[in-house]
Amino acid sequence: MSIAVDTMRAAVYHQEGGLRLEEVARPVATEHQALIRVAACGLCHTDLHYLDHGVPTARKPPIILGHECSGTVVEVGSLVEGVAPGDRVLIPAVLPCGSCEMCRLGRENICTSMAMLGNHIDGGFAEWIAVSARHLLKLPEEIPLEEGAIIADALTTPYHAVVRRARVAPGERVVVIGCGGVGLGLVQFARAAGGRVLAIDLVDSKLELARQLGAEATVNGGEGNLGKAVRKALGGAPEVVFEAIGHGPTLQQALSLVAGGGRVVVVGYCSHDVELSAGRIMFRELDVLGSLGCRPVDYPRVIELVRSGVIKLAPMVSHRFPLQDIAQGLDALRRGELVRGIVLP
Amino acid sequence: MSIAVDTMRAAVYHQEGGLRLEEVARPVATEHQALIRVAACGLCHTDLHYLDHGVPTARKPPIILGHECSGTVVEVGSLVEGVAPGDRVLIPAVLPCGSCEMCRLGRENICTSMAMLGNHIDGGFAEWIAVSARHLLKLPEEIPLEEGAIIADALTTPYHAVVRRARVAPGERVVVIGCGGVGLGLVQFARAAGGRVLAIDLVDSKLELARQLGAEATVNGGEGNLGKAVRKALGGAPEVVFEAIGHGPTLQQALSLVAGGGRVVVVGYCSHDVELSAGRIMFRELDVLGSLGCRPVDYPRVIELVRSGVIKLAPMVSHRFPLQDIAQGLDALRRGELVRGIVLP
Amino acid sequence: MSIAVDTMRAAVYHQEGGLRLEEVARPVATEHQALIRVAACGLCHTDLHYLDHGVPTARKPPIILGHECSGTVVEVGSLVEGVAPGDRVLIPAVLPCGSCEMCRLGRENICTSMAMLGNHIDGGFAEWIAVSARHLLKLPEEIPLEEGAIIADALTTPYHAVVRRARVAPGERVVVIGCGGVGLGLVQFARAAGGRVLAIDLVDSKLELARQLGAEATVNGGEGNLGKAVRKALGGAPEVVFEAIGHGPTLQQALSLVAGGGRVVVVGYCSHDVELSAGRIMFRELDVLGSLGCRPVDYPRVIELVRSGVIKLAPMVSHRFPLQDIAQGLDALRRGELVRGIVLP
Amino acid sequence: MSIAVDTMRAAVYHQEGGLRLEEVARPVATEHQALIRVAACGLCHTDLHYLDHGVPTARKPPIILGHECSGTVVEVGSLVEGVAPGDRVLIPAVLPCGSCEMCRLGRENICTSMAMLGNHIDGGFAEWIAVSARHLLKLPEEIPLEEGAIIADALTTPYHAVVRRARVAPGERVVVIGCGGVGLGLVQFARAAGGRVLAIDLVDSKLELARQLGAEATVNGGEGNLGKAVRKALGGAPEVVFEAIGHGPTLQQALSLVAGGGRVVVVGYCSHDVELSAGRIMFRELDVLGSLGCRPVDYPRVIELVRSGVIKLAPMVSHRFPLQDIAQGLDALRRGELVRGIVLP
Repeated sequence: MSIAVDTMRAAVYHQEGGLRLEEVARPVATEHQALIRVAACGLCHTDLHYLDHGVPTARKPPIILGHECSGTVVEVGSLVEGVAPGDRVLIPAVLPCGSCEMCRLGRENICTSMAMLGNHIDGGFAEWIAVSARHLLKLPEEIPLEEGAIIADALTTPYHAVVRRARVAPGERVVVIGCGGVGLGLVQFARAAGGRVLAIDLVDSKLELARQLGAEATVNGGEGNLGKAVRKALGGAPEVVFEAIGHGPTLQQALSLVAGGGRVVVVGYCSHDVELSAGRIMFRELDVLGSLGCRPVDYPRVIELVRSGVIKLAPMVSHRFPLQDIAQGLDALRRGELVRGIVLP
Repeated sequence: MSIAVDTMRAAVYHQEGGLRLEEVARPVATEHQALIRVAACGLCHTDLHYLDHGVPTARKPPIILGHECSGTVVEVGSLVEGVAPGDRVLIPAVLPCGSCEMCRLGRENICTSMAMLGNHIDGGFAEWIAVSARHLLKLPEEIPLEEGAIIADALTTPYHAVVRRARVAPGERVVVIGCGGVGLGLVQFARAAGGRVLAIDLVDSKLELARQLGAEATVNGGEGNLGKAVRKALGGAPEVVFEAIGHGPTLQQALSLVAGGGRVVVVGYCSHDVELSAGRIMFRELDVLGSLGCRPVDYPRVIELVRSGVIKLAPMVSHRFPLQDIAQGLDALRRGELVRGIVLP
Repeated sequence: MSIAVDTMRAAVYHQEGGLRLEEVARPVATEHQALIRVAACGLCHTDLHYLDHGVPTARKPPIILGHECSGTVVEVGSLVEGVAPGDRVLIPAVLPCGSCEMCRLGRENICTSMAMLGNHIDGGFAEWIAVSARHLLKLPEEIPLEEGAIIADALTTPYHAVVRRARVAPGERVVVIGCGGVGLGLVQFARAAGGRVLAIDLVDSKLELARQLGAEATVNGGEGNLGKAVRKALGGAPEVVFEAIGHGPTLQQALSLVAGGGRVVVVGYCSHDVELSAGRIMFRELDVLGSLGCRPVDYPRVIELVRSGVIKLAPMVSHRFPLQDIAQGLDALRRGELVRGIVLP
Repeated sequence: MSIAVDTMRAAVYHQEGGLRLEEVARPVATEHQALIRVAACGLCHTDLHYLDHGVPTARKPPIILGHECSGTVVEVGSLVEGVAPGDRVLIPAVLPCGSCEMCRLGRENICTSMAMLGNHIDGGFAEWIAVSARHLLKLPEEIPLEEGAIIADALTTPYHAVVRRARVAPGERVVVIGCGGVGLGLVQFARAAGGRVLAIDLVDSKLELARQLGAEATVNGGEGNLGKAVRKALGGAPEVVFEAIGHGPTLQQALSLVAGGGRVVVVGYCSHDVELSAGRIMFRELDVLGSLGCRPVDYPRVIELVRSGVIKLAPMVSHRFPLQDIAQGLDALRRGELVRGIVLP
C-alpha cells in the first residue's frame, strides 16, 4: 500500500523509444525544496526538438519532460521560508544558479549553471514535482492555475525578447513572424510596449487570433510580395522583426524585411546553420539579437501584466490534454494545430 | 593653353575595362563647394569589390574611384563659409544628406541619401576634387596631410565599430579578426577604449604590427585550436569579436569564439551569403551587429585622438604609390601586402 | 484697401506692458517658407514664464507668443517642395538647425541654434504665420485641425520624456507628478509604453481625467503619507517618476518617492534653484534626467499614435478661447483651471 | 595563555568617544567563511563621515571600521571551496546578498541587503577578519598585497562610475573634480576608457599627480574663470563631469561646467541638501547620475587592469600608518594630506 503512495505517473523521455508514460517514484522535497502537485504543464516545440530533431537533453535520459509548469505546494523542506503548503505557484522554466558571472551581471537567463525543467532536471509532465522553493512565484487568485502554467515560457520568453532585447518603444513598427504560443506572446508584449504590430503566419486562424491580441495588421506569409505588403500596412519598413519559428527561410525573411538600422530578434530555435546575408547585416547596420527565455527576476512583472489584463492568457491556451493523452497533444503540436496546449495530470 | 589647365589625370572606373588612368575635365566648385588639390587617397578593399567582385558602384560608371582623401583647398564657391583657400582638409568618405530620417536620428553613417566618394560621386584618385564645403574637416598641423588621408576610412570606420556599435569598455576581452588597415584601426581603438585586445591574422608581420599598436596578444589564424588559444591568452572567452575581413569562415569563427551574451561586430563586407548558426545566436543570446563607416560628426574626435598620439597614424601607412602606378598598388592590395597604401597624384 | 489685406491681429509680447492684442503686418513666405492660416495655438505655462516670471524670450520683444500651432497652408515659397496650399499641417514647437553637433548626433531637441516659435521667432497667437516649409508635418484627416495643435508640445514633450529619456518598459511602476497638459500626456505615453501609472495632483478632477487616460491609480498630493500611498497602490516604489510642474517641493518629492536605482525625469521648468539631496542621488544611485521638448523627427510617430487612437487628444483640450479673449485664457491657465486651452484666431 | 591567542587589536568605533584602539576577540570563521590575516586597510572619507559628520553606521556601534582591505587566508570553514589557506586575497568593500531584486538585476552595488565592511559588519582596521569566502578575490603575484588593499574602494568605485554609470567613450572630454584617492582613480579609468581628462583640485601637488596618472590638463579650482579655462584646455565643454568630493559648491560647478546633453556623475557623498538648478538640468537636458561603489562581479576586471599596469597602484598609496597610529592617519586625511593612506596592523 505505502509503495503505491510513493509513485506517480509521468511522461519519461528515453534515449531509445522516446516518450513513455510510466509509473515512477514520486519526488521528495529536500530541505530547500517544495513538493508541488502539478496543475498543468504546457507543450512546447522545445519538447519536439528532443523527441524529433536529435537535440540532446542536458541530463542524459531517462528524464521527465515539460518546462512550463504550475501547481499547488503540498509540502516544503525544513529550511524553506516564504512558501507554504496551499500556495498556488508558477515554476520558472529555468532555475538560475545565482552565483555565476552571468547571474551576477543581471543575465540570469543565460546562467552558465542553469537548471531547466525537463532538460537538466525532471520536468512537469507528471503528477508531482519537487523544486528549489526560492524560485517559486505565487500566482494571484485572478490567474487560473492551469492556464497560468504557460506564463512560464510562452509569456515570459516574449517579455524578455520585447522588453530586454528589442526594447520596443511606442510607435515603432514591429513584425512578428510565426503566431504559435511564443509568437502570439510577442504580439501581445510588442503591443503592450506601444509598438505597431504586424503578424505573419501561414494559418489564417492564427492571424485572426493575432489581431484579437493586438496586431493592427496581418499578412499571410504564403501570399505575394511580403516586403511590399508589410511596408504598405505599416507605412514603412519595420524597425523590429521577431522570428519566432526557428526556420532558415523565415529568418532570411526577417533580415530582408527589417528597416536599415533595425533589429532582428532570433527567438525561435533553429538546430541547423542558415545562409544569411552578412553583407546586408553590415551594410544596413542591422542588429541581429539572440533571445533566450527570461530572467526569473522579471517574472513578477509578467504575472502582474497578466493579472491586470494587459496581457491576455485565455486565448493563448487552445487545447487541454490529460497526461495519458500527451502523445495526441504532441502530434497536434507537430501538425501546427495548437496555439498552446497544456497537459493536465 | 587654357584647355590644359582645365583637365587633370584621374583613375576612372569603367563598366568594361575596369580602371583606366585618363585625362578628364578638372572639376569646378559650385557655390557651396570647395575645390581641393588632392594630397593623397587611400587604397581600400572596397575598391576591389567594384573592380574584382562585381559589386556595382551606386553611380553608373564611368566614375573616379577613391574615398579616403585629403588635400588642400584651392578655391571656394561664393556661398561657402568657414573654409578658405590654403586650408588643409580631410574629406569624409561619406557625405550624409542631413535631412533624411537616419541623419536626423543621429545615424548619418546610414543616411539613405548619402553620397560616397568613388561610389555615388567622383572620388579621390585624381589631382583635384570638388565637394560640398560644409563636410570638410580641418587637419591640424601635427597630422601629416598625406598620411592623414587614411583617417577618412581606415580610422573612422574602426572608431564607429568600437565606440558606437560594440561600445567596448575598459577591461573587456576583445578579439580582432583581420589585421589590414581597418583591422589595425580596430586594434588601436579597442585598446584606446580600455579593451584587452587579441589580434588574429595569417600574416605574422601584421600580427607584429598589431602588437605594436596595442594588442596584448596575437594568434596566427592558421594554427591549431583557435578557441583554446584565445581563451588561454585572454583568460576567458572574448566579450567582443570584430570580423574585419568579410569572409564566411572567419565570420563563423567569430560566432564560435565569442563568449555567451557577447557581441560580434561585422565590419568586413561580404558579398555572398554565409552559413551561420542561428541556434547559437539564439541560445547563447549573442548580438551580431553590423557596422558601416562612421558618422562625419564623429570625425573631429578621431582627428583629435590622432593629433594627441593616442591613435597612431604612421605605422598604418605601409605603402605610397604615385597615381600613375595605382595598378601596382591595387595588385599589392590584392596580394594582401598592404596595411594601408596611399595614392599620391 | 490693399493695406488692410496685409495686416493681421496677433498677441504681441512687449518688454513693458506684457501681452497686447495688436494689428501687425501679415508675414510673407520667403522662398523656403510656407504661409499658414493658423487654426489654433495652445496656451502653455512657458508663456507664463515670459509674462509673469521674468524668463526672457530668446529674441528681444516685441514678439508674437505661442508655440503649439496648427493650420492650413495658403502659399508656399518658390523653392518649397512637398508642401502645397491646402495642406493641413502641424508646426513643431522648435525648429532645429540641422547642422549643429547636437542635431547631427540625433539630439535635435537641444539644437544649439534652434528657433522656437514664440521665443526665437514669431509664434502662433496670430491669424497667420510663415515658417520654413521643411519642418511642417501633415495632419491626417482623422485628427481635428484645431485640437491637433496641442500635439506640438503637450503630446510630443511627453513622448520624448517617456520614450527617449525614461525609456519606460512594460510592467514598470511609473509616477507622474502634475496633471496639466504635459502631465496627462506623460500618463498617456507611460501607459502606452506598458508602464503601470500612478498620477499625483492637487485637483481631483484632473486625477479623474488621469484615470480616464490610463492611470491605474491616483493620489491627491495634499493628503497624508504620499510615499506609503504610492507604494501600496503600485505594489512597490516606482522605478520612474516624472516631475511635470517645475516646482521645488514636488521635485524633492520625486527624489523621495523613486525606488533605489530608479529614474527621475525633470520635465517641468523651474526657474530657481532647488534644494536636492545629492547624497540620496549618490547613495541610491538615481538617474536624474532632464527632458526638453521633442525631436521633430519623432513627431510622425506621435501623430500616428494619435491618429490610431492609442493616444487620446480630445479630453486634453479643455478650453477654447478666441484670440481676442487670450487674456482670459491666460488667467484661467494661471489659476490652474485648464488641462490644455487653445486659442482660435 | 590560550586566551591571548584569541584576541587581537582593532580600531573600534563607539557611539561615544569615537574610535578607540582595543583588544577584542579574534573572529572565528564559520563554515562558509575564511579567516584572514589583514595585510592592510585603506583610510577613506567614509570613515570620517561616521566619526565626524554624524552619519550613522548601519550596525549600531561598537563596530570595527575599515572597508578597503586585503590579507592572507589563514583558515577556511568546513564548507568553503575555491579558497585555501595561503591565498592572497582582496575583500570587496560591500558583500551583496545575491538574492534581492537589485542583485538579480545586475546591480549588486545597490543590493538592498548588502553587508559593507566597517558599516554593517566588522571591518579591516584590525589584525584579523572573517568574511564569507565566496566573495574573496585572489590578488595575482604582480600586485603587492598591502597596496592592493585600495583596489577595494579607491579603484573599483571609479571603475563603476566611469564604465557603468558615465560610460566614457574614446575622445570624450571629461572633467574630474577632486583629486583624492577616488578622484585620481576616476582620472585613471576615464583615461583608460579613452577619455580626454582634465582634473580640478585646490592642491597643486595632487594636480601634478593627476597629470602623471593620465590627465592631459589640470586647473586649480581656486583660480579665475573655471568654465573658460576648462573649455580652452579641452577645446570645448566636457561631455562628462565627475564630482568626487561630496561638496555643494563643487556639485554646482559640475552642473555649470558640463556641456548641453552631458552627464554629471555624483561620486562624492554629501550629507546635506544642495541647491541645484533644476531648470538647467531640464533645459540643457542633463543626466545627473548617482554612482555608488562597484559590483563585486566587476572586481576581476579592475584587478586585471592593475596587474597589467593600465591602472597604476603605487602612486595612489601616499602614506602608511601602523594600526597604533591610525589616529594620526585620520588626522592627515582630515587635513587633505593623503592621496590614499593605508593602515598596517
